[in-house]
Amino acid sequence: MNYVLKNLPVRTEKPRTTGFTMVMDKGMGIREVENFVEANSDFVDIVKLGWATSYLTKNLAQKIQIYKDAGIPVYLGGTLFEAFVIRGQFEDYRRVLEKFDLSFAEVSDGSISLNHGKKCEYIQILSKDVTVLSEVGSKDAAKIIPPYKWIEQMQSELDAGSWKVIGEAREGGNVGLFRDSGEVRQGLVEEILTKIPEDRIIWEAPQKEQQVWFVKLLGANVNLGNIAPNELIPLETIRLGLRGDTFDHFLGAHLM
Amino acid sequence: MNYVLKNLPVRTEKPRTTGFTMVMDKGMGIREVENFVEANSDFVDIVKLGWATSYLTKNLAQKIQIYKDAGIPVYLGGTLFEAFVIRGQFEDYRRVLEKFDLSFAEVSDGSISLNHGKKCEYIQILSKDVTVLSEVGSKDAAKIIPPYKWIEQMQSELDAGSWKVIGEAREGGNVGLFRDSGEVRQGLVEEILTKIPEDRIIWEAPQKEQQVWFVKLLGANVNLGNIAPNELIPLETIRLGLRGDTFDHFLGAHLM
Amino acid sequence: MNYVLKNLPVRTEKPRTTGFTMVMDKGMGIREVENFVEANSDFVDIVKLGWATSYLTKNLAQKIQIYKDAGIPVYLGGTLFEAFVIRGQFEDYRRVLEKFDLSFAEVSDGSISLNHGKKCEYIQILSKDVTVLSEVGSKDAAKIIPPYKWIEQMQSELDAGSWKVIGEAREGGNVGLFRDSGEVRQGLVEEILTKIPEDRIIWEAPQKEQQVWFVKLLGANVNLGNIAPNELIPLETIRLGLRGDTFDHFLGAHLM
Repeated sequence: MNYVLKNLPVRTEKPRTTGFTMVMDKGMGIREVENFVEANSDFVDIVKLGWATSYLTKNLAQKIQIYKDAGIPVYLGGTLFEAFVIRGQFEDYRRVLEKFDLSFAEVSDGSISLNHGKKCEYIQILSKDVTVLSEVGSKDAAKIIPPYKWIEQMQSELDAGSWKVIGEAREGGNVGLFRDSGEVRQGLVEEILTKIPEDRIIWEAPQKEQQVWFVKLLGANVNLGNIAPNELIPLETIRLGLRGDTFDHFLGAHLM
Repeated sequence: MNYVLKNLPVRTEKPRTTGFTMVMDKGMGIREVENFVEANSDFVDIVKLGWATSYLTKNLAQKIQIYKDAGIPVYLGGTLFEAFVIRGQFEDYRRVLEKFDLSFAEVSDGSISLNHGKKCEYIQILSKDVTVLSEVGSKDAAKIIPPYKWIEQMQSELDAGSWKVIGEAREGGNVGLFRDSGEVRQGLVEEILTKIPEDRIIWEAPQKEQQVWFVKLLGANVNLGNIAPNELIPLETIRLGLRGDTFDHFLGAHLM
Repeated sequence: MNYVLKNLPVRTEKPRTTGFTMVMDKGMGIREVENFVEANSDFVDIVKLGWATSYLTKNLAQKIQIYKDAGIPVYLGGTLFEAFVIRGQFEDYRRVLEKFDLSFAEVSDGSISLNHGKKCEYIQILSKDVTVLSEVGSKDAAKIIPPYKWIEQMQSELDAGSWKVIGEAREGGNVGLFRDSGEVRQGLVEEILTKIPEDRIIWEAPQKEQQVWFVKLLGANVNLGNIAPNELIPLETIRLGLRGDTFDHFLGAHLM
């Protein structure tokens, strides 16, 4: 770091399993990615190429390589997995993972109806080849899943082979874990945490207030996802109590 | 594309007259433009240098050339046309078009009061030199133009020589076609479509929900405008049914 | 400029004391900064490295140098000053200013409780070494400071040696000078202006509507701060009456 500040929360270091940050890239070009990794690689644990944006990205293999060279694995958004599955092209999807030499994949059912047993089968199959992240929660604001079902699904997906489960929020942060307004469904999060180990969950939290809420609840090293590329250093300051929003929170523990 | 997905809507290709996307550049620098066209040139049909931002842009001629070399024509925002007209400098405006060798121009009256016959005269004059886009709708949220007047104005502007007419929304998407809240004035759009051919209209739709609404109403190849540069690949996925918002919409037609 | 438009408001030129624009950089990388200054250096008077983002910025010295070479001084956000002070590391903070050869510093108490006499002492001490900007207003939306206190504090901070005082708004524009909704606390601003000379105040105004409001109240050459890097040319057009929002405002004076 550029200077020494005493009594900061201790952040985990790469390769991280907690204090993990997943960034969402929704179509950055090659130069943008180069600039991004140069400034931010220490703070990014994995990059998601949001939903099916990879379909249209120019020089996709080169882009993935730039991330890899910077020590950042890449995976394809869950909506893409679903787009292949609904078309009966699951085997084609596996070949895409191979073609681009990806070591992570996401299994989700945010936009399609998928029998949960079938979803777990996909997790089992894919987890033989790659590290699987699976996502729980619908992209449809009208579909409210009760907490016990979130827990059941998360547990059975971890049992089926998921490395971590992701709590859905979309790019906007207004579904799944959150209400329309972006407000956290606090009871849901707290109930999930009574059953699922914290380090096995990545919370999608694109909005600043959501990030602050999770850092206050679970500390500097909470796993967060769907972070916009230009919000990465701001998030890191929130984790460290170096932004107004969490400034007091961490001081309480150390200095007062 | 980077892999094959079956049963996608068929997108038109450049040069497009339908399925047209107009991007708003509100002051990008030379390097940004280079990066932008490298990643996105297939998906952009025309770039608007928003309102009068061109007045302050460094290396303007070079910037316009980068777009041109990538097969993307550029035009100056309508507010700039109005700024010249209100100052009695219309002839100077024509010299600006010449100086920067522009082949498109916008005629609008969003910020000035212009007799509609006079507006059509400007369209007639300019359409002798360049391809004219003309814009209907006020930038003033308080000025509600009734549907029959939108139609009258659009028709007479097309008759006067406009290549296409643009439905106003501003950068924010909260006037003209839209309510303060960003919600589409649905009755207005539907009434316009009973009289004006769809391929002659560009709908300004800067917000994601607005883009989704138009794609659901008019399909993958609706003409949309005021798209932010970093929302171009996301928009393309919306057009193709490869984002949660329109995922079901296109599947209905092909797969169910 | 790229062409001549008559009867525009006259903008001050660098080095400016009025018509001053402070930009907030919240973690841009080296290349982004290079691109930014190339396109915008004429319009930026000073850059703030927002809150404590400088702690995590790679190649910080190089970044500061790029700004300097473009004629743009840099200072560290007030929250960083507070982070040092609350840890009893004020002397370390002074060494940071020295190490990075900074000629400006901010003194604030937005996140800590600081006796106002003590705050003025910090201003006195630092103003011997650097030009001090001091900030008034809390980052806590619940802490409403009455107008007479804003005035008292601003005056005593100027007396203590502040070059200018900054009215707080945060990156979001929803505290201090503004209500939760982002609306200006108009009575507060007007009362401040009865006592404190306009050219000694920088108004943080990150949202477009806030910038428009201040330009309408105080003219093209109002001092504004917390401007996002990609909103700089748009702001300049607002100052010049070349965007819809202030188009009429300046015409009134010159052309009608």
